[in-house]
Amino acid sequence: MNDLTLSRVSELFDELEEESRIFISRVERIQTPICPLDFHREYVAPNRPVIIESLSEDWNASSKWNLDYFRSVLGNDICQISVVPDGLADAVVEGKFQLPEERKIKFSFFADVIEGKTKPEDEGVYYLQRQNSCLTEDYPKLAKDVPNHVEFATKVFEFPSSPDAINIWVGGKSSVSSLHRDPYENIYTVIRGKKIFKLFPPTYRGKIVYKEFPVVRCYYNQSISKWERKTEKGIDSVRWIENGVDGVDASPIIVEVKPGETLYLPAGWFHQVYQEDITIAVNYWYDRAYDQRYVKERFIDQLAELLHET
Amino acid sequence: MNDLTLSRVSELFDELEEESRIFISRVERIQTPICPLDFHREYVAPNRPVIIESLSEDWNASSKWNLDYFRSVLGNDICQISVVPDGLADAVVEGKFQLPEERKIKFSFFADVIEGKTKPEDEGVYYLQRQNSCLTEDYPKLAKDVPNHVEFATKVFEFPSSPDAINIWVGGKSSVSSLHRDPYENIYTVIRGKKIFKLFPPTYRGKIVYKEFPVVRCYYNQSISKWERKTEKGIDSVRWIENGVDGVDASPIIVEVKPGETLYLPAGWFHQVYQEDITIAVNYWYDRAYDQRYVKERFIDQLAELLHET
Repeated sequence: MNDLTLSRVSELFDELEEESRIFISRVERIQTPICPLDFHREYVAPNRPVIIESLSEDWNASSKWNLDYFRSVLGNDICQISVVPDGLADAVVEGKFQLPEERKIKFSFFADVIEGKTKPEDEGVYYLQRQNSCLTEDYPKLAKDVPNHVEFATKVFEFPSSPDAINIWVGGKSSVSSLHRDPYENIYTVIRGKKIFKLFPPTYRGKIVYKEFPVVRCYYNQSISKWERKTEKGIDSVRWIENGVDGVDASPIIVEVKPGETLYLPAGWFHQVYQEDITIAVNYWYDRAYDQRYVKERFIDQLAELLHET
Repeated sequence: MNDLTLSRVSELFDELEEESRIFISRVERIQTPICPLDFHREYVAPNRPVIIESLSEDWNASSKWNLDYFRSVLGNDICQISVVPDGLADAVVEGKFQLPEERKIKFSFFADVIEGKTKPEDEGVYYLQRQNSCLTEDYPKLAKDVPNHVEFATKVFEFPSSPDAINIWVGGKSSVSSLHRDPYENIYTVIRGKKIFKLFPPTYRGKIVYKEFPVVRCYYNQSISKWERKTEKGIDSVRWIENGVDGVDASPIIVEVKPGETLYLPAGWFHQVYQEDITIAVNYWYDRAYDQRYVKERFIDQLAELLHET
């Protein structure tokens, strides 16, 4: 590839980014009830996020959920909590892809830590965030406070089947996700606190650079009272985004999701997520469609890889 | 661009074509009533054609329309007919983009010609095919025999608006369209005869080669009893597909549309259309969506142009 042609392909990516900005720079807000056909035509098919303001209005979770309620329900239940020294789990830190320590502790201790009532010896950042449908798998006592599927979404995405996973997320402001994307249609509801999503659509792919990283897992070494990282067994490397949200040469679309609000984040969108104060959120992952749209997305991905290799 | 990289981009196009074939090699058949959401999710959003078998069942046109009925309704009305020496209107012939002679003649004479009852002096191929919403504009007496919109399609494409154009097509087996694509969602119903669509999805774009062609218009020169072509005024050139359906290095998806059947042909699909015997058809053009999907399609188009230039 000589320089001229390389720059022309790069220009095409710039145009793709610029033109797609016309359609997605502003995230609309809508109310329920939602007509599934309108939702599919206006948001799902064109791959556009939207905030749904009133979806969770009548969920029990909306009125009941906070840390004290969780303490009363979960009692002394042992929960799996992600702990890292720096708030960065599943993120590239010092050239390595860093997994969190997965610690089993009492919910009440976890709640005390994120509220600042207790300072653990490790001084780590604690986050309840297992993404294995943890709400239904690990916390059935809480799961009954939210619907087991989102009716309009189930109709829209894959009637008559159900979501692939329902996750709960509980943490404080020090927990930040790294820039990534998921192969799921995401219905993400904030119950308490606030989430800030920094987004790039799939059409900004020319600006997103992936690289292979060795994988390490954090652990707190009690005998010397220090955080260390060890090579994770059984996995050689992970392909992850090298440049975080601040390293992408384009402005992210920033969306604040406040209590009671729901973000529809289409499959394939890049996102880095922040939170303010103690934040409790629930999300429903529905399978994305694997069809012509996916094939085109992969084509664009692979072309971007070619461009970045050169 | 050195040869290696060029060949890698070309390989990406091959993969795009190959992978998309998984999803669109077979055109399904469905019945009415059609759930608009299902239709949008299964066909419109993934850009997949489908045959609807029973849409036109209760249209008056289905029972009434044939050439004799048209003769009785249109009487001696003067109609605009496309006439060419070779059946190829709006097609590249001998290195030039050829427009048809647009002749105004009595419908009954046109009907006699395509039925072979009369052999015109010019020995041309006659086709009623103006694409200016000709059914409603030119033949209001026939337009009342079909609905003025297709209810489910109007809901799916752009509720609450109506189709951009409704066209009628009447001709014999010598009329063949050239390979092209339209920026419309197409609902195409055959009333009599048979249409054969040879299709390539937009993802085969790497195999479709466009070039600029000078524009000529056919006319029959009565004084010397010969067909001639003259440069069309006011238009320098037309960008058109250089390789016809047989020149594309991939097998087309072939769809036969028989009387009473309707093809949904998604926007952007390449098609070359043949017909058997005397064929009468009606089609509804709905505006395509201009959004992220369109932006991605243009990106793929322009990359293919880069590839073909090199």
